[in-house]
Amino acid sequence: MAHTAEIIAVGTELLLGNIANTNAQAISQSLSALGVNVFWHTVVGDNPERLREALDIARRRCDIILTTGGLGPTYDDLTKQTICEAFGQKLVFHPEILEEIRTFYESALHVPMPENNAQQAELPEGCVIFDNPVGTAPGCAFESGGVHVLMLPGPPHEMTTMLRRHAEPYLRRLSREVILSRDIMTFGMGESSVEELLRGEMARMVNPTLATYAKPSEVRLRATAKAASEAEAAAMLDPVERMVRDALGDIVYGVDVSGLAEVCLRLLAERKLTLATAESCTGGLAAERLTAIPGASRVYRGGVVSYWTSVKGDVLRVPREILDTYGPVSEPCARAMAEGARAVTGADIAVSVTGAAGPDPDERGVPVGIVYVGLATRSGTFCRSLDLGRRRRDRIQGLAANHAFDVVRRYLTGLPI
Amino acid sequence: MAHTAEIIAVGTELLLGNIANTNAQAISQSLSALGVNVFWHTVVGDNPERLREALDIARRRCDIILTTGGLGPTYDDLTKQTICEAFGQKLVFHPEILEEIRTFYESALHVPMPENNAQQAELPEGCVIFDNPVGTAPGCAFESGGVHVLMLPGPPHEMTTMLRRHAEPYLRRLSREVILSRDIMTFGMGESSVEELLRGEMARMVNPTLATYAKPSEVRLRATAKAASEAEAAAMLDPVERMVRDALGDIVYGVDVSGLAEVCLRLLAERKLTLATAESCTGGLAAERLTAIPGASRVYRGGVVSYWTSVKGDVLRVPREILDTYGPVSEPCARAMAEGARAVTGADIAVSVTGAAGPDPDERGVPVGIVYVGLATRSGTFCRSLDLGRRRRDRIQGLAANHAFDVVRRYLTGLPI
Repeated sequence: MAHTAEIIAVGTELLLGNIANTNAQAISQSLSALGVNVFWHTVVGDNPERLREALDIARRRCDIILTTGGLGPTYDDLTKQTICEAFGQKLVFHPEILEEIRTFYESALHVPMPENNAQQAELPEGCVIFDNPVGTAPGCAFESGGVHVLMLPGPPHEMTTMLRRHAEPYLRRLSREVILSRDIMTFGMGESSVEELLRGEMARMVNPTLATYAKPSEVRLRATAKAASEAEAAAMLDPVERMVRDALGDIVYGVDVSGLAEVCLRLLAERKLTLATAESCTGGLAAERLTAIPGASRVYRGGVVSYWTSVKGDVLRVPREILDTYGPVSEPCARAMAEGARAVTGADIAVSVTGAAGPDPDERGVPVGIVYVGLATRSGTFCRSLDLGRRRRDRIQGLAANHAFDVVRRYLTGLPI
Repeated sequence: MAHTAEIIAVGTELLLGNIANTNAQAISQSLSALGVNVFWHTVVGDNPERLREALDIARRRCDIILTTGGLGPTYDDLTKQTICEAFGQKLVFHPEILEEIRTFYESALHVPMPENNAQQAELPEGCVIFDNPVGTAPGCAFESGGVHVLMLPGPPHEMTTMLRRHAEPYLRRLSREVILSRDIMTFGMGESSVEELLRGEMARMVNPTLATYAKPSEVRLRATAKAASEAEAAAMLDPVERMVRDALGDIVYGVDVSGLAEVCLRLLAERKLTLATAESCTGGLAAERLTAIPGASRVYRGGVVSYWTSVKGDVLRVPREILDTYGPVSEPCARAMAEGARAVTGADIAVSVTGAAGPDPDERGVPVGIVYVGLATRSGTFCRSLDLGRRRRDRIQGLAANHAFDVVRRYLTGLPI
């Protein structure tokens, strides 16, 4: 029987909206991959009564409870105490853990440990201890009455590290069934259009299943198979992937990749080519997405954020006639920006983006949503003209950056731009 | 009596971890500002039985239920139907809403409406209709047995727009008490150190309250007062802000601002100065954060992402002797990058970042976490040298970008860099 899990995040900062519950997202991804059904996420504040209520509801409907948060050094960090009361466990002080916390402060953060960190060294008696190599609060797990309770810290990078190192191995030992997912990534068509093309197939499928997920500027399709082994599940997913590729054609840009930026970096590396960027309305977003990926420096040389028209002229060498005659948001300017970026950086290809991201039309009255993507290569310069509609500024910027990557991808794979 | 709310997000994509529940964050911020206590967030999948269970639990413990998601055109969008069953409401088809949806497709997205959008025009009988100017699914609200149920769409930009235009005015009519919060933003000290300085005061406070929230690379303090009027609440917050400023000094960089980038843009505008950036390890992140803010073009001229050493030389004119002798991750290089960005863009001041963001040390063996921030001004060039420790790549990039903004802020306000 598959295990069912509830993720309980503890923190008033979540209920006040200071942060989003990205921990529940990361844990859900892990649990899905392990074949654990996540049926509930719950968020409660730093309030022992309501945390107790959440625990009492969760233990009735799930057999795995994962909590995040409330393990810190401050006086409102009450998760361990409340869980121990709910499940009848005792807290025990571990002097060796306090020493690890002190070492972390001194060697990694290069500051002395504040003394209020001591309560982080108390853990439920007999639990499995999850050490925390990137922070101070250790986590832990125990089983009580058929329910497994796992406590992870709140800061996302500490939580993620502990999830990989400790929680996943702990849960893997509980599970038998393998669930395998494959993410088929598309760019260039809206979610309802994608679904309309696949709707008949999707409605018929039971195992494997296929579902669409709209990301801010693309559509992801997730095919999921349950089987006794990973090889069997993979063999079930192959025909689904083929069916999707046949139905959607070249808007499928990759499988199990994080996004178009990653695909561009990989295609460039395979072809031993380097890339540069020239950005106006995206203001560095394309560069940032590329350089967020470790190893981007192998193929990405750099770029220019030519936000002012003068920077387009002075740094990217866009001819004054083009800026005067057509304006900075124009096809000739996009082409000249890409050519300029290619020339000044020495890259093999350069992609440019110029447009009106809003909220107001640009100074020459170009409407919000008009965007031009240029591409300069050794075999010539190309341009894609776009009308992205009256969307929000950040949506236009995100979509425009993805169009830039899509132009690079299509050029490198020999597709029409 | 203050109202208490539960936010129920509906969507299997949340439970699979495909997206984070940013809607709950945005709604929580709104409700806190309206004096509504948010005690619970719940997430359920596209599953009518579990949504029904969540609704039954929520109506027992809260008098406001806000749902997001499941209003779309696809076959697994079941929120309206399930809520109507739970609360004994009937669904009614509105032909005029279908026409609005068709118009939105044709005029804003410039594509014809897929016919499966028709079910979005069905709404509970007698509800208050929330129209959706930026998408297709309308929302709605009704009251039943003392519980107010508000349904909002899932796509975040549609949800946010409907929240501001419809849900907030609807809820404002229910509430009497005013809750006012003030966010005091700090950069330069960790959360436990900030709390240690303020812990005595924080523990004593009841109304107003003061709480710390660690963001990825800074600490926000939120002071919150409940009162009968906004003026009274504001008067209660003034002494709290003074106390925090006295205790923390110049690490406080602003009040009720989104971040250091916004403060930099405002200080530059007040002083009629322009800024340029030169980025290596942050790869465009500083530029992206500045240009994410509407109106950045008034003071931000642009920048160079000099990811390769050759781009530092060719575009930013960093002298070859500096690159050969000290390497690209060095104080002389950071200074020369800033001076070069200032020269090529014509900006009044330019800030640069170069460092080793990891995961591996740079090619010359500079350890991960070593970062230099340069600042070129008409009165000379400055540099801040940093050891950010062995953190994760994205954390180092985020912290380094904030250090760049902090250097600009301190220069513009006459503080030591």
